[in-house]
Amino acid sequence: MSSSRTTSPPSPSPRSPIAASADRSKHIVFAHGGGGQLTDELVNHLILPRIGNDVLNQLLDAAVMPAAPGTRLALTIDSYVVQPWAFPGGNIGHLAVSGTVNDLAVCGAQPLGIAMGLILAEGFAKSDLERVLDSIAAVSDQAGVRVVTGDTKVVGRAHADGIYITTAGVGLVPEGRDLSPSRVEPGDVLILNGPIGEHGLAVMLAREMPEVQSVLRSDAAPLNHLIDRVLHGAGNAVAFMRDATRSGVAGVAVDLARQTGWHVTLDETRIEVRPEAQHAADMLGVDPLEVANEGKVVVVVRPDASDRILEAMRTDPLGASAQVIGHIGDTRDGVCELRTRIGGRRVLQKPYGEQLPRIC
Amino acid sequence: MSSSRTTSPPSPSPRSPIAASADRSKHIVFAHGGGGQLTDELVNHLILPRIGNDVLNQLLDAAVMPAAPGTRLALTIDSYVVQPWAFPGGNIGHLAVSGTVNDLAVCGAQPLGIAMGLILAEGFAKSDLERVLDSIAAVSDQAGVRVVTGDTKVVGRAHADGIYITTAGVGLVPEGRDLSPSRVEPGDVLILNGPIGEHGLAVMLAREMPEVQSVLRSDAAPLNHLIDRVLHGAGNAVAFMRDATRSGVAGVAVDLARQTGWHVTLDETRIEVRPEAQHAADMLGVDPLEVANEGKVVVVVRPDASDRILEAMRTDPLGASAQVIGHIGDTRDGVCELRTRIGGRRVLQKPYGEQLPRIC
Repeated sequence: MSSSRTTSPPSPSPRSPIAASADRSKHIVFAHGGGGQLTDELVNHLILPRIGNDVLNQLLDAAVMPAAPGTRLALTIDSYVVQPWAFPGGNIGHLAVSGTVNDLAVCGAQPLGIAMGLILAEGFAKSDLERVLDSIAAVSDQAGVRVVTGDTKVVGRAHADGIYITTAGVGLVPEGRDLSPSRVEPGDVLILNGPIGEHGLAVMLAREMPEVQSVLRSDAAPLNHLIDRVLHGAGNAVAFMRDATRSGVAGVAVDLARQTGWHVTLDETRIEVRPEAQHAADMLGVDPLEVANEGKVVVVVRPDASDRILEAMRTDPLGASAQVIGHIGDTRDGVCELRTRIGGRRVLQKPYGEQLPRIC
Repeated sequence: MSSSRTTSPPSPSPRSPIAASADRSKHIVFAHGGGGQLTDELVNHLILPRIGNDVLNQLLDAAVMPAAPGTRLALTIDSYVVQPWAFPGGNIGHLAVSGTVNDLAVCGAQPLGIAMGLILAEGFAKSDLERVLDSIAAVSDQAGVRVVTGDTKVVGRAHADGIYITTAGVGLVPEGRDLSPSRVEPGDVLILNGPIGEHGLAVMLAREMPEVQSVLRSDAAPLNHLIDRVLHGAGNAVAFMRDATRSGVAGVAVDLARQTGWHVTLDETRIEVRPEAQHAADMLGVDPLEVANEGKVVVVVRPDASDRILEAMRTDPLGASAQVIGHIGDTRDGVCELRTRIGGRRVLQKPYGEQLPRIC
């Protein structure tokens, strides 16, 4: 590997996707893993044609399958390769469990258990592994979900970056619960549970500008209790929800417009960005709307239920500053539009890759 | 990574575990991922004290959990880091799906779906990814199990070795089915479905002696249909089963003796090693008994059912040369003994790590 590193051409910069166009037709580039347009391309043109089926093709955060009469099962998986593996506000273990719990929760599932696959680099300090495991224990307790099975593999120092964690989660979807883009209707409103961009920006700042002092912390947290509050007693007023991870809130809104076919409008003045996050975004030259969160969920609800659901969210510390941030229009154009702070309108597009790789 | 690579001491050889003893007290070494004694140590002293619980602590191939009244769910996960990712008889995709299906099947579960997390190195050829996906499609068809959800991440060229795959599987355990070491009794016999060592030896030969021509092929295959035949109509005559992956048939037998507390005897003359596998083992200096398989299962059955079960196995191509290879004795010493070809007796111990790392 080291010789190929010195003799091969420099790897394309993830921030200059166009320069990478020659390479990306035949080889994997960073942006293929960023959750943006190029990930969609890889999934739709390479993966689904080979292993696609009616469940996988839905591309939901978790697959929902009938398991036994009256029982629907949700299954999800994510590999975490965040660099650095520890960052302000969390580490890879805390992130992995939160992410998996959230992927189940946004599909309306009650988590049953987590499976964890560790890939460790030879030489990784046991004390660091202990720190990761302690975080996993703490966040599992917080979420009320246990790691029930696992696997550990070790690769050479040069063949991994300390630690990668893949977590899969399984949960049960209560009877009658139906959360799906197909249930979204014109007039529905979009609710977001808090300020954005903090996970991705905290990681990027730690990696790119480690000398900068900031109070910014990752927002990674398990949202299952918050989502329970939202769904409790809401009947069918909640149409759909998705956590705003890779590609951020912009990615969720653009996907929503595309999947439902309706016009989606976001109101920039209602989307909270804390000063320290805005400051980091300015320094890094990225848009907080497109940055990964791991403790934020966009909930699409019927308009007459929005006050009740906002109130339910705000009783949870993780939803204390919940806001209506947009709505579903009645134009069938599949476009997502942002009404900006200065009163302008901008069509949002899904980011090409992500601003910087390896945020989660 | 590169600076730590040049300034840190050379990595300990995986074949000289003792030389690595200074390192392994504080750092991860290859043998921690080998499925042998050092993996057990890591799991028991570092992982379980932090995140253990009554399900995880059972350390079965799959966790079995009550899901709904009358429904038990099995969940399993494995990370695959095999090097090279393609080898005679298969590749990492074929291996991952087979391994996950087998982990569910040996727990008596009917597979419901597979979740797949890909970690790709930047620069990995799309044509190679297509080849891996085609194998996944083929083996999924063979097993009758689908990939229902997935995730893709990309890391830098220097931070992975082409492709790692983590697969999780979920399945349902039919009511009344109970496979557990606690059901094993003196007098029970051990049945193995075919010749051993072929997966690990094929991989090692491809990696260590790529110039050697051999007809040896990995045995990786999904065993769920074979196991269905074994369990069909067997009632409670099957006490326990385990697939002989890392640490091989020796590892399974040693674990069985330790977990049940009974004396386990293996008969070397009944354990088939094909000439090409023995030849490879001799060249590589390893014992086929300790080498990883991915299409072999050890089934512990009541003695009066063994003929019937052998017959059922032999009707499946993957069990054509099934044999009784040992039995459970009535001494409570937890020892596993091998009766050798030349009539001697040898106490088997679990390998320290594995003969060479990254076999699966």
